[in-house]
Amino acid sequence: MRKILLIGAGKSTSSLMNYLKEKSEIEDLHITVVDKNLDLAKRIMGDHPRVSLQNIDIFNDEARYNAINNVDIVISMLPARFHMQVARDAVKLGKHMVTASYISKELMELDAEVKAKSLVFMNEIGLDPGIDHMSAMRVIDQIKSKDGKMLLFESFTGGLVAPESDDNLWHYKFTWNPRNVVVAGQGGVAKFLHAGEFKYIPYHKLFRRTEFLNIDGYGQFEALPNRDSLKYQNIYGLEDIRTLYRGTIRRVGYSRAWNVFVQLGMTDDTYEMENSEDLTKRDFINAFLPYSPTDSVELKLRQYLKIEQDDELWFKLLELDLFDDKSKIGLKNATPAQLLQKILEDKWTLKPDDKDMIVMYHKFGYKQGEELKQIDSQLVVKGDDQIYTAMAKTVGLPVAIATIKILNGEIKTPGVQLPITAEVYNPILKELEDYSVVFNEKEVPFQCYNPNFVAG
Amino acid sequence: MRKILLIGAGKSTSSLMNYLKEKSEIEDLHITVVDKNLDLAKRIMGDHPRVSLQNIDIFNDEARYNAINNVDIVISMLPARFHMQVARDAVKLGKHMVTASYISKELMELDAEVKAKSLVFMNEIGLDPGIDHMSAMRVIDQIKSKDGKMLLFESFTGGLVAPESDDNLWHYKFTWNPRNVVVAGQGGVAKFLHAGEFKYIPYHKLFRRTEFLNIDGYGQFEALPNRDSLKYQNIYGLEDIRTLYRGTIRRVGYSRAWNVFVQLGMTDDTYEMENSEDLTKRDFINAFLPYSPTDSVELKLRQYLKIEQDDELWFKLLELDLFDDKSKIGLKNATPAQLLQKILEDKWTLKPDDKDMIVMYHKFGYKQGEELKQIDSQLVVKGDDQIYTAMAKTVGLPVAIATIKILNGEIKTPGVQLPITAEVYNPILKELEDYSVVFNEKEVPFQCYNPNFVAG
Repeated sequence: MRKILLIGAGKSTSSLMNYLKEKSEIEDLHITVVDKNLDLAKRIMGDHPRVSLQNIDIFNDEARYNAINNVDIVISMLPARFHMQVARDAVKLGKHMVTASYISKELMELDAEVKAKSLVFMNEIGLDPGIDHMSAMRVIDQIKSKDGKMLLFESFTGGLVAPESDDNLWHYKFTWNPRNVVVAGQGGVAKFLHAGEFKYIPYHKLFRRTEFLNIDGYGQFEALPNRDSLKYQNIYGLEDIRTLYRGTIRRVGYSRAWNVFVQLGMTDDTYEMENSEDLTKRDFINAFLPYSPTDSVELKLRQYLKIEQDDELWFKLLELDLFDDKSKIGLKNATPAQLLQKILEDKWTLKPDDKDMIVMYHKFGYKQGEELKQIDSQLVVKGDDQIYTAMAKTVGLPVAIATIKILNGEIKTPGVQLPITAEVYNPILKELEDYSVVFNEKEVPFQCYNPNFVAG
Repeated sequence: MRKILLIGAGKSTSSLMNYLKEKSEIEDLHITVVDKNLDLAKRIMGDHPRVSLQNIDIFNDEARYNAINNVDIVISMLPARFHMQVARDAVKLGKHMVTASYISKELMELDAEVKAKSLVFMNEIGLDPGIDHMSAMRVIDQIKSKDGKMLLFESFTGGLVAPESDDNLWHYKFTWNPRNVVVAGQGGVAKFLHAGEFKYIPYHKLFRRTEFLNIDGYGQFEALPNRDSLKYQNIYGLEDIRTLYRGTIRRVGYSRAWNVFVQLGMTDDTYEMENSEDLTKRDFINAFLPYSPTDSVELKLRQYLKIEQDDELWFKLLELDLFDDKSKIGLKNATPAQLLQKILEDKWTLKPDDKDMIVMYHKFGYKQGEELKQIDSQLVVKGDDQIYTAMAKTVGLPVAIATIKILNGEIKTPGVQLPITAEVYNPILKELEDYSVVFNEKEVPFQCYNPNFVAG
């Protein structure tokens, strides 16, 4: 019997747990799930002979060490900053490890020891990072194997609401940490390569430099650039590439309206507002507008940001009751970003029957002989319900599949790694298709320059 | 004979040194000037019997201690971060101290000891901070002494080029550290009070929220808000004030054009640009504009920021040769702000015969009985030449005058302080008038709301 330790049983682990449970007989597994809160684990795992649920304090060195010592492989679904204690124990005890988080410098320092002990430490194997790496590298390796020379790689991912549950003008609901959505794009310039030119977009212009995308069967979307599109340039082997761009997908119109918050300063998370506990939504907006003894907050906002009264954008703002002065937002010592998040959470939370949706889009431009070619690859995954969300499926299933394949010796190259080799991505992408995670790849005419790139 | 130690003899100390030299006989002074570079001191002090110029290393603890031990009062014109070592020695040795810098928390911690030894540690006694404190508090105290209740205080300062030396479309030249001009307004939201409402302006809107001012005989100016207008609210005793705003003065049109740099991201000092040493000015701008296979950098910029081809603003950009692709800017590993500074320094440096100009404008709104009243107070100081600049006069003379008055016991209230009491501001403002530093104070109709406030 092979023993698996899963540390952390939060929302994004539902599909991961369910997969392991379902494979437990045929793969001869025993699964130990450890968390402070085991409600979700109990609901999914039930009372299963091959599963133990334990309320161990993972920050207790002895308890953690013993738990890891007792298994063959450890999956850490803790927040990324807590992985290192687990990783140090795992390498010491000679256990494999899997996470869906970015590889930290600290973790990379264990690489030599991990290799010396022939261990696999697989990371960045969720959705983004994860499925994006695997689906991109499969195509890039294909192109290179046919002597194609990569010219362009653009990659976009979005966590959205499924069309059947889409009932607001923003066409958006929170399917992920709301805080990350509110402060998205902050903390550094957005940097990418376009036709050989380095391009930089400051935060306050980010939501006006979007690009349109069409997803077959799902219509039009928009994408805004991520912070550092060049991060994986060398890792993907794209040293000579001319265009390299990674972005976040939203429904068309979202960014233009979100830009109102950015322009006003309502997404700022660096200072606390005076008397924040007393502010109504109307006061909150008014704090970013000039004083006037006569003009309404509505008029001042429209004049300040030049919004016409019948602009779709205006109705998006009204839908949020932004000008309400009846009730307080009710947060003490809050930053603008925290107040905005509170306002949006009241409006953009998934209802019990709502389904979420993951969208991913890669474009690969390349030269084969004298010919310029392009492959577009698209993925849409919808959630089943509020437990088995698209987010939980796409984050958790690759982690679960990788875990079994490491146990089975199918994935065996040792080291601290991310899923960019054929040994890893081929079997995992293949099995993901059984769970409706299927990329639609097709040849299209090469476009170095997207005429739908909007600079407004 | 009273002995003065002046530490630091940079550009802003010319008038300070000259004042001390001229007063040295009548006030029975001996002045020791210490700096690594004594060129300016030699030029101003010449070979004077009451002056010694010394090349002491002020970071050598023993040398500094001995130098301070030998005098009655120390003036530190070092960069602010170096004051503390001097201050610790001074308090230990029982010597007075004068600086033109903001009072740091560290310095304030010496207050009890300074008071116990009956010493005066006078700070923030240059121009801004300095003359602004004194000229404002004189009027505020007057108003309060007549039972006036302060409703509004707005205060603006600018270091500009004198009209007779103004020969560029920006009506601006560097008279101060250029770096501070390029990154002005960054590092935090601008916060102020307007008619009882707290207002916040994010950096990317700062240059679009200007206010117009008229200075008698000098025409129209504009002002943009400083970072924290509320900093001196309690220190000035303005707890119940309704409007509190501090700002920076420029000539009209400067901010609207500077906003182009802000919008593009050219003032960002947080990251280094790729291959910065190879960039021409044209490349530099293009890095912030969308890629296009067909459109010129000029067209892209005009379209992106919606600039009409005959807009005055456009000619300001052309005047800087911003689209030149002949020569490299020539800075390695440079941030956008560093590259922009280099471009501007080539254009905005004072010529040998140019004169600078300091402009200050305070507005005091108050209620006396049932009557709403306002006093406006204006100051214009021009430089004599490139040595005795308006900046050097307005920064150095209050420091010098305060030093003598402390020695003479006219300023005697002990403690770490800034010049906000009548004991300090009355004699200093009076003597400053002999040097053409004269405020023009007049009653005007009360304006709670400036109709010339522009929110564009």
